[in-house]
Amino acid sequence: LPGSWKMLTVAVCVTLLGYMQAQELQGHVSIILLGATGDLAKKYLWQGLFQLYLDEAGKGHSFSFHGAALTAPKQGQELMTKALESLSCPQDVTPSRCVELKGQFLRLSQYRQLKTAEDYQTLSKDIEAQVQQEGLREAGRIFYFSVPPFAYADIARNINSSCRPGPGAWLRVVLEKPFGHDHLSAQQLATELGSFFQEEEMYRVDHYLGKQVVAQILPFRDQNRQVLDGLWNRHHVERVEVIMKETVDAEGRTSFYEEYGVIRDTLQNHLTEILTLVAMELPPNVSSSEAVLQHKLQAFQALRGLQKGSAVLGQYQTYSGQVRRELQKPDSFHSLTPTFAAVLVHVDNLRWEGVPFILMSGKALDERVGYVRILFKNQAFCVQGERHWASEQCQCLPRQIIFHIGHGELGHPAILVSRNLFRPSLPTQTWREVQARPGLRLFGRPLSDYYAYSPVGEQDAYSILLSHIFHRRKESFITTENLLASWVFWTPLLDSLAREAPRLYPSGAESGHLLDLEFSGGQLFFSQQQPEQLVPGPGSAPRPSDFQVLRATYRESPLVSAWPEELISKLAEDIEATAVQAVRRFGKFHLVLSGGSSPIALFQQLATGHFGFPWAHTHLWLADERCVPLSDPESNFQGLQAHLLQHVRVPYYNIHPMPVHLHQRLCAEEDQGAQTYAREISALVTNSSFDLVLLGMGTDGHTASLFPQSPAGLDGEQLVVLTESPFRPHQRMSLSLPLINRAKKVAVLVMGKRKREIAMLVSRVGHEPKKWPISGVLPRSGQLVWYMDFEAFLG
Amino acid sequence: LPGSWKMLTVAVCVTLLGYMQAQELQGHVSIILLGATGDLAKKYLWQGLFQLYLDEAGKGHSFSFHGAALTAPKQGQELMTKALESLSCPQDVTPSRCVELKGQFLRLSQYRQLKTAEDYQTLSKDIEAQVQQEGLREAGRIFYFSVPPFAYADIARNINSSCRPGPGAWLRVVLEKPFGHDHLSAQQLATELGSFFQEEEMYRVDHYLGKQVVAQILPFRDQNRQVLDGLWNRHHVERVEVIMKETVDAEGRTSFYEEYGVIRDTLQNHLTEILTLVAMELPPNVSSSEAVLQHKLQAFQALRGLQKGSAVLGQYQTYSGQVRRELQKPDSFHSLTPTFAAVLVHVDNLRWEGVPFILMSGKALDERVGYVRILFKNQAFCVQGERHWASEQCQCLPRQIIFHIGHGELGHPAILVSRNLFRPSLPTQTWREVQARPGLRLFGRPLSDYYAYSPVGEQDAYSILLSHIFHRRKESFITTENLLASWVFWTPLLDSLAREAPRLYPSGAESGHLLDLEFSGGQLFFSQQQPEQLVPGPGSAPRPSDFQVLRATYRESPLVSAWPEELISKLAEDIEATAVQAVRRFGKFHLVLSGGSSPIALFQQLATGHFGFPWAHTHLWLADERCVPLSDPESNFQGLQAHLLQHVRVPYYNIHPMPVHLHQRLCAEEDQGAQTYAREISALVTNSSFDLVLLGMGTDGHTASLFPQSPAGLDGEQLVVLTESPFRPHQRMSLSLPLINRAKKVAVLVMGKRKREIAMLVSRVGHEPKKWPISGVLPRSGQLVWYMDFEAFLG
Repeated sequence: LPGSWKMLTVAVCVTLLGYMQAQELQGHVSIILLGATGDLAKKYLWQGLFQLYLDEAGKGHSFSFHGAALTAPKQGQELMTKALESLSCPQDVTPSRCVELKGQFLRLSQYRQLKTAEDYQTLSKDIEAQVQQEGLREAGRIFYFSVPPFAYADIARNINSSCRPGPGAWLRVVLEKPFGHDHLSAQQLATELGSFFQEEEMYRVDHYLGKQVVAQILPFRDQNRQVLDGLWNRHHVERVEVIMKETVDAEGRTSFYEEYGVIRDTLQNHLTEILTLVAMELPPNVSSSEAVLQHKLQAFQALRGLQKGSAVLGQYQTYSGQVRRELQKPDSFHSLTPTFAAVLVHVDNLRWEGVPFILMSGKALDERVGYVRILFKNQAFCVQGERHWASEQCQCLPRQIIFHIGHGELGHPAILVSRNLFRPSLPTQTWREVQARPGLRLFGRPLSDYYAYSPVGEQDAYSILLSHIFHRRKESFITTENLLASWVFWTPLLDSLAREAPRLYPSGAESGHLLDLEFSGGQLFFSQQQPEQLVPGPGSAPRPSDFQVLRATYRESPLVSAWPEELISKLAEDIEATAVQAVRRFGKFHLVLSGGSSPIALFQQLATGHFGFPWAHTHLWLADERCVPLSDPESNFQGLQAHLLQHVRVPYYNIHPMPVHLHQRLCAEEDQGAQTYAREISALVTNSSFDLVLLGMGTDGHTASLFPQSPAGLDGEQLVVLTESPFRPHQRMSLSLPLINRAKKVAVLVMGKRKREIAMLVSRVGHEPKKWPISGVLPRSGQLVWYMDFEAFLG
Repeated sequence: LPGSWKMLTVAVCVTLLGYMQAQELQGHVSIILLGATGDLAKKYLWQGLFQLYLDEAGKGHSFSFHGAALTAPKQGQELMTKALESLSCPQDVTPSRCVELKGQFLRLSQYRQLKTAEDYQTLSKDIEAQVQQEGLREAGRIFYFSVPPFAYADIARNINSSCRPGPGAWLRVVLEKPFGHDHLSAQQLATELGSFFQEEEMYRVDHYLGKQVVAQILPFRDQNRQVLDGLWNRHHVERVEVIMKETVDAEGRTSFYEEYGVIRDTLQNHLTEILTLVAMELPPNVSSSEAVLQHKLQAFQALRGLQKGSAVLGQYQTYSGQVRRELQKPDSFHSLTPTFAAVLVHVDNLRWEGVPFILMSGKALDERVGYVRILFKNQAFCVQGERHWASEQCQCLPRQIIFHIGHGELGHPAILVSRNLFRPSLPTQTWREVQARPGLRLFGRPLSDYYAYSPVGEQDAYSILLSHIFHRRKESFITTENLLASWVFWTPLLDSLAREAPRLYPSGAESGHLLDLEFSGGQLFFSQQQPEQLVPGPGSAPRPSDFQVLRATYRESPLVSAWPEELISKLAEDIEATAVQAVRRFGKFHLVLSGGSSPIALFQQLATGHFGFPWAHTHLWLADERCVPLSDPESNFQGLQAHLLQHVRVPYYNIHPMPVHLHQRLCAEEDQGAQTYAREISALVTNSSFDLVLLGMGTDGHTASLFPQSPAGLDGEQLVVLTESPFRPHQRMSLSLPLINRAKKVAVLVMGKRKREIAMLVSRVGHEPKKWPISGVLPRSGQLVWYMDFEAFLG
């Protein structure tokens, strides 16, 4: 042999040897695709497994692929073979090489029916036999559940009992959503799966996490850490939009869609995952799965709870008709399932406080596009006229970072950074600059205004995720904790919206500005307030705002009655008007507030909706207090602190919590807290006559902390008293009835069905404060107004 | 006579009779224009007087116009006649009628030399004689001072002593700026004028208030009150820009300009006046001069004080050369006078808190334009792609109101309101919609995106103001209070900028983005941080930031020394780092703060610049307190409240003011305030060891409120003590040295020249707390760091 041939032979032998040794070292991996002939498998999973084989074979592992389903072996094998025919190779592989590679993959793949426990036992034995026969070590098994969730439990049980690999080899099970329908069902499902598998064995797929641009969010933040550090916060970010628009509708899938709706279908999972990737604190090492998962979980903890007002819902006009057709519903049926939703999310931590995160997703819209847009604040003023503005230097042009997940006018995944921000750093081997496309405008600016990068080779999300499963990159999957945290966040909103009628919209571009949104004061609403009903639809259920505020009398005093939201609005308005008047006349406003849950809505309303409130001149007093430290969650003051004082600027010395905690003890008689408070009142409030006292009414007729049969506070000279409550914590401090009745105005707020009975009773009794302390509230020369919602007043 | 002629004669007679009666009723008005042959008179004032005559003659008054100057009568009359030749009539007057009207006006106008006291006496007698001769009553006299300010005093004295009209007739004197050079000179001038004239007699002109668009700001706000009510506030306004750009430079006027500069020339007056018209609360009746002036004054009171960092300055490159030429300066001369300035103003009231008002004015810029732009916040999300956005409905397009004072690409005065805001109401007789001009873009949008209105007839500012003087509409003029309030606002900034080197810029469009601005944290700065020096100019004086922070030791402890701004920045950073670490380790951070003026800069820095500060977990304590109520301006706590607590969110129960005010008395021994504070510390702070104590040092070596020879607090067991200060208020409460020395870290902040001597002395003494309490500060197991600015440390 000539020398060069010899050398080549040696090289080949060394390579082969190395390959064989590596295989022995790394062992054999069996991948079992359950639902091997289903849609998802045909469309993505087999191709993903083929890609995995191409990427990994030759790096030390040997593979076998088992397509499984309930179908009998022969028929199943046929279906599977058909599915595998359409496998494609990467662009850089020659056709002949591709045929070869596909051949190799097909030889390693076989169909098997998995139905009974025995089937699983057989599978396990077959794998063991094969491994032994070929002199290999078993590395692990991957079970991919591409089956409906109702089938999960049986399969899981069978795998756990009959198909785990032997000691030293790992098991990974891959699960596809839906992962429950709400927090409870998700928890039940998680508990069930948890009885079969360890947390580390489970890989819950959210395929958005496999999309190239989404998978790049954290690396992007990491690689541009230095410049982003100063920008990625509430001082610079004006808003974040997480958007997924579809042109398709739910036709053909309404049986699924009726049960889930858009929030469960895309917001609870895809959009929330993206939100956390943007909002989370960046761990020092973004390649540590553990650190990433932990920081993500912390982001969940910082999410402000959603309320009904945080979201708006829509439904494309032809949806109900589709449901009627597909699910054989009667003509009278109108679905309430939303096909469009937008939600305003706030992340209440130092980094993001006050920055609106808008999550929006919908079907039958004008375009198909998915993106995350981080818009930065414009805090610049450009001296020269606009025609002199240069896109790289001008800080007055919009500054934004867009993770363009796909589709849209651009048509492909990309990361865009405004040129007046910075030139981003991206891995040059896998990302390249986007070609110029004159005339193309994105997010208000021509493409040329951005540094724009797209992946060198587009990769399917499932291929990426299968690779991550294989490499145990758990940060690309949904842990149980993560899943439950997301459901904890979404379930209350879903509950509160369950009976909301979505706004109907025509499909495609015809909806015009009908679905446009505005946000303020933590609420989200449609810009156009009262759309015409565009087709004869289900019609909105009568909503609170359709009702007039009712004015009447109760116990011979004025009564304001309305649905809760309107009632709180009215009360807040009345308080503001009283405050403005008092400050105008006396320079200050003495307001007494109560604890409990009804006032919290009021506090929030005052904090967000009333910019004209003269807080700087308002003194805040408490009507009563529980004998716990002020920072205790049980403390009335704590509610005031969290829901009002955090948000408005009342000078420190205008705030007058009750001194229930003196000398490191609670409401000790000898500390004279009640007397101290009384003296403070006498010193600061003219004639001890408050401008406004806000009270509640208990189901037993108590008010402030004056309970029936109270030995103190119902009459006499004392202004402030210590009392005993029948409820925990028993010890209380309270303003006395005589002091309350000195006020210029007293408002009693009564809300909820639970108060119905006492409200009826109290409407009939006379002045009997011993039995019903609330009946003793009647300002001597001031005004008493009752604020009752319809549930309390009308039952 | 035929019947119709008879009727006409009767009508003419009735009219004449009515006219003569009215004249008798309303009386005669003499208008004396001082400086009748000067530039302003030639350019604007004679024309304005002619306009006044056209508008008012025939409505009951008779007029005479006296042009006056120092020039001798004959020559003066010639000059004046020449000036009057160019008078023009309104467009709707026929040429022949114009000739007639001009003839009438010229017959009523005469020149007279006014030089000596006798001249004024003669003038007065002549007027009286004329009035008597014609059988009229004298209504009043208007003296228009179109003369340099140095001539004011003499003229004013002469008018007051020799030329006042008799009883029952009014006097009005009209004054032109400059009204002083700073607060002191303005006050002196005002006092001097006040010795001759009543406030109601003086009309200080700011001709911007006569510009049609400026004069329309309040009426616009009034007529659109209902819709603006909800919008004209911090919840909806993103920013306000008050802009005056000129293309001309100061050539030929440098002798004036060198003395004044752009801030005195345009910002202190024109732009400030406009700012107040936008920011002021709208009085119920905008036609009440008194109410308008009072509300304007209130707006001044709400302005946040300006600091050096509130402004940036520029100077066009050829300015110094022009000054050298015109003022015969040597080649080495470089002017520091700014020809460009931008200032960030904040209005600290409930309506405007947090909204940036940008005032900008400059010469030799790319275009001539003046405008006020109110940009509203974008709190919308538009679901459809941009190509579907309709300008009237789309809330995502910019929403703005622009008072376009004049010039610019539009070329004339106008009021623009974005169509997605509202259709404004304007007086239809005097304002009309602007014609479409395809291709014209204004403020980022095509003209067609706006409702645009301009005046039916353009009127010169001086004509409008002369009419307002005649009709006593004082709201269009600068009262003494208003003037002084403006100087109070501007003088500190002018002082602090006196030695700043302005950034040099090329004239016209060449300056590119060199002058672009950004604002954040209450500061304004050029976007481009380090421009190349474009021509060999004066070069910047060395600035504080050019110096390194110096690290050394002092009293054997670390010393940080720098210029004040850097020192405060460094200290704030160090405090934040300590806080973050403490919260990470212990979950909370106990910080002790001091009173005085140095910490105020620190508080402001912490409040605005440190978003990562863990305020929610920080406890704030006081090192010492004066025995005054907490809300007293003398209270240390009050400084903390105003400069820190107002701006950050420290939970109420984490704030620990010293209990100097118990039982409605101050620091009474028997109230045991010191002991109470000590107990609070013991209860909440582990080992009573604070995480960080910030102290100052007095010129007598005191620290906290521990003064030399203090009988308490320098040693012993007591944690908190009552002490006596040699300064008022004498009574104090203070942490003791032993408690301070338990801290984990103590920072002593020493700033200013005044501290130089004591700093030197203390550097040499040993441990002698009785003599110099500061020398007793030495944490037992903690760290001591000195922060001294160069003035204190280097003298």
